[in-house]
Amino acid sequence: MEKSNAQINTIPKVLVPLAQGCEELEAVTITDLLTRAGIKVITAGLDENIVTASRGMKLVPDKTLDDVINDDFDMVVLPGGLPGADHLNNDSRIQALVKTLAANNKYIAAICAAPRVLATAGLLEGKHATSFPGALDQFPVKDLTYEETAVVVDGQVITSRGPGTAMDFALTLIELLSGKRKRDEVEASLQRVKG
Amino acid sequence: MEKSNAQINTIPKVLVPLAQGCEELEAVTITDLLTRAGIKVITAGLDENIVTASRGMKLVPDKTLDDVINDDFDMVVLPGGLPGADHLNNDSRIQALVKTLAANNKYIAAICAAPRVLATAGLLEGKHATSFPGALDQFPVKDLTYEETAVVVDGQVITSRGPGTAMDFALTLIELLSGKRKRDEVEASLQRVKG
Repeated sequence: MEKSNAQINTIPKVLVPLAQGCEELEAVTITDLLTRAGIKVITAGLDENIVTASRGMKLVPDKTLDDVINDDFDMVVLPGGLPGADHLNNDSRIQALVKTLAANNKYIAAICAAPRVLATAGLLEGKHATSFPGALDQFPVKDLTYEETAVVVDGQVITSRGPGTAMDFALTLIELLSGKRKRDEVEASLQRVKG
Repeated sequence: MEKSNAQINTIPKVLVPLAQGCEELEAVTITDLLTRAGIKVITAGLDENIVTASRGMKLVPDKTLDDVINDDFDMVVLPGGLPGADHLNNDSRIQALVKTLAANNKYIAAICAAPRVLATAGLLEGKHATSFPGALDQFPVKDLTYEETAVVVDGQVITSRGPGTAMDFALTLIELLSGKRKRDEVEASLQRVKG
């Protein structure tokens, strides 16, 4: 996986937008693991309200999206869950943000239902990608190669399937931003049992 | 795994205490998956404050512990993380609660550093159990059979190791409370890749 020395030597900065009805296990797996890796993770609500996630957990974002929309990020990671992913998809700030990051050769990652945000933005055209099964059915993408693997990395676009793949997804993001050694270090700390 | 028909036919009620510095991925995996199973999960802060978890995520509990301490629960599940697990361990209400549930033949579950709460309460004596590696070193238990498997079920006491085993832990709790079919249903919804 490609990474520059600059990325290894500075602290990467990652934005995780939190919409009402986001999947809390996905959102928290991403923020927890990337934070363990020493990455600067900023969670941002679409407005100033506390976020009630898809299974009822209430999360307090670090910031609002308006607070940070003009900051520089190395990666944006979109949690899934419904209606959370649709709120992201329908937010013009999020649509502009993912396009800007893509144009600047930064990473754009989405899991579960959230790859539909990337479909709408035109960022999946000609790409290999995955999603929660069926999540892209209403979002046709030209020349998409749909895969059913846990995590798909295609250039700057990383996609994944659901809560059960969120840990592998987050570990892949760590590897892209901070290298394989850091990924292995974080993975070892989790006490994961490998199959 | 043992369960009565009464447990299958009524909605089980589970308490998840959330201390400052709890491991957010463990706390959220438990509440998310049990909620997916149709189990009534109540998160309770030790006081009225928002909980800042071990990697910085801010969680708003449903209730305070004082609000629910006299309710009937079928199970209490203690998330790990430090200093979260030590706050639970040092809370006399939590110590009394786990002893009362044990005396009433209810389930007591703890993950990561939280099995030390059960050690202090005397609930691990003569039991098979696990924990985050080293988490019980300062908490000697008489006749403990320490195992290094992801999830250990010994009668009413269920223990597990860390964030990487939290999903298997939560699925085991679902099976105990609501049966194998429900466990399988929830597991399928996660899109987990088996090893």
